[in-house]
Amino acid sequence: MSERVFGVDIGGTTVKMGMFTRQGDLMEKWEIPTRTEDKGKNILPDIASSIKEKMEKDGISTLDVVGIGISVPGPVDDSGTVHRCVNLGWDVFDIDEEMKKYIDVPVFAGNDANAAALGEAWKGGGKGCRNVVVVTLGTGVGGGIIVNGKILSGHMGAGGEIGHIHIDDSETEKCGCGNCGCLEQYASATGIARLANRRLAKDDTPSSIRGVQHMNAKVVFDAVKAGDALAKEVAEQFGDILGKGLANVADVTNPEMFVIGGGVSKAGQVVIDYIQKNYVKYVFHGSRDSKFTLATLGNDAGIFGSAKLVLDGVAAS
Amino acid sequence: MSERVFGVDIGGTTVKMGMFTRQGDLMEKWEIPTRTEDKGKNILPDIASSIKEKMEKDGISTLDVVGIGISVPGPVDDSGTVHRCVNLGWDVFDIDEEMKKYIDVPVFAGNDANAAALGEAWKGGGKGCRNVVVVTLGTGVGGGIIVNGKILSGHMGAGGEIGHIHIDDSETEKCGCGNCGCLEQYASATGIARLANRRLAKDDTPSSIRGVQHMNAKVVFDAVKAGDALAKEVAEQFGDILGKGLANVADVTNPEMFVIGGGVSKAGQVVIDYIQKNYVKYVFHGSRDSKFTLATLGNDAGIFGSAKLVLDGVAAS
Repeated sequence: MSERVFGVDIGGTTVKMGMFTRQGDLMEKWEIPTRTEDKGKNILPDIASSIKEKMEKDGISTLDVVGIGISVPGPVDDSGTVHRCVNLGWDVFDIDEEMKKYIDVPVFAGNDANAAALGEAWKGGGKGCRNVVVVTLGTGVGGGIIVNGKILSGHMGAGGEIGHIHIDDSETEKCGCGNCGCLEQYASATGIARLANRRLAKDDTPSSIRGVQHMNAKVVFDAVKAGDALAKEVAEQFGDILGKGLANVADVTNPEMFVIGGGVSKAGQVVIDYIQKNYVKYVFHGSRDSKFTLATLGNDAGIFGSAKLVLDGVAAS
Repeated sequence: MSERVFGVDIGGTTVKMGMFTRQGDLMEKWEIPTRTEDKGKNILPDIASSIKEKMEKDGISTLDVVGIGISVPGPVDDSGTVHRCVNLGWDVFDIDEEMKKYIDVPVFAGNDANAAALGEAWKGGGKGCRNVVVVTLGTGVGGGIIVNGKILSGHMGAGGEIGHIHIDDSETEKCGCGNCGCLEQYASATGIARLANRRLAKDDTPSSIRGVQHMNAKVVFDAVKAGDALAKEVAEQFGDILGKGLANVADVTNPEMFVIGGGVSKAGQVVIDYIQKNYVKYVFHGSRDSKFTLATLGNDAGIFGSAKLVLDGVAAS
């Protein structure tokens, strides 16, 4: 029997699970519901049961299992201790120790955003690169910095918080983090909608996006593709702000590749074009040649990254 | 005979050299001139001769030498290839291979700014911390990012270029790098002088630094300590800009400690006070507790860091 790695991505409503070869090929994936009741005490036993069921069905013994990687929606330190997950009802505990009660294989845990970034860097848009910055443009702006193939988690797991890079001194509205003028306030899906609404309110310039009921990033970029001048102005502002923010990230980390994912990236190459042409204006020349590409793994990034946590963890131990 | 490590820091006029124990204690240090004539072809032979002389004097055999670490004022990639050093007259070559012609011990090369940062993180202000950002406020603003005890050099060795983080959209004067509005234009020694001169030119507010012939950071911070209101305004602007820049660095890297060095830091704790009170205003809450301290190794940081390059290199190989 060849070796298997399990990648698990715990979300607030479903747990995504994947079985991989040791080389990182995804063989099968499935989901189970996340039972958050009773302070989430069933979540880990449910995961163990599901994996054991899978193993039994395929005739896999625990000796064939390299390990289980688990990504959780909250801070996890290098020792595998989870520091509260509000969405799961979890308090502080050692996820490895707890999981061992249900299944006797090595367990490696990490934060979900970081794991997803690791997955994209490993088998997605950043494949083949050792130094990658993954940027997720969703409701917020998430990030993951991969340095020499490893997640940069920092002293307390707060590395890669690029959505909260300070960009605009003149901002008066508060970001969710409590500060004003964070990158996320302009470059997330909601941020782009806000830029569009602000631009529309400024004057009466005609535009196909004027009067749209639910302004969002898709509306803006669809209009850009159709040649709408005002939408292009909004995209330019988005690209200028995000390009500036990512230039600052590159001045610190000098990545080979930026991988752009999340809902906003579904608009495709046009998003990258607006970011990159502004990025090169601001970045130090040593990082001017960093490349940009779209994320490719979508919702599977988390299970890929969790599987990679296992392979890295086993290699280091 | 116990083991010895040599740390070498090549500057444009002198080569600093140190002999260390394997534990990183500096036993002796000395300097030789840097002979940059003939495309700098004598520099490495001179270093080898000086080390061999020292070894002979102390009865040290090549078997007792763990290795020689060499920091150079230019880009060096992970394989030890130097990519031109204008100040030394050097073109592209493998420093390890070249050095082996003169002395048969392991050689590890690195960039001088990064090596100095590694030294400060290892035995200076950052001692005991695994995640450190070293900021050198000199003629320019240099930086070195230490992640899990290792230099973050990035894809092409351009990691840690924090002096070129973009800070001010409204700047019209160019930075040495060709961009406008880089951190270095405000937070370096020359940057502080520029801030002071701009403030003085704005109006006639009386100040002890008005009419000073050679404006510099020392003049400004001496006036701050003496209670000069205008100098305090300048220091506040310096602290706001640098605090904002370092907040962005922390949002990416989440360090435990910032180590502030270079000529400007000689003004002491007052420099840190102005930076830190502004830093906490801009940084993401996950990095709000990062600490600040002054560099302690001064000009020896480079030889310490070069010695550490050896110990890390030997451990990895």
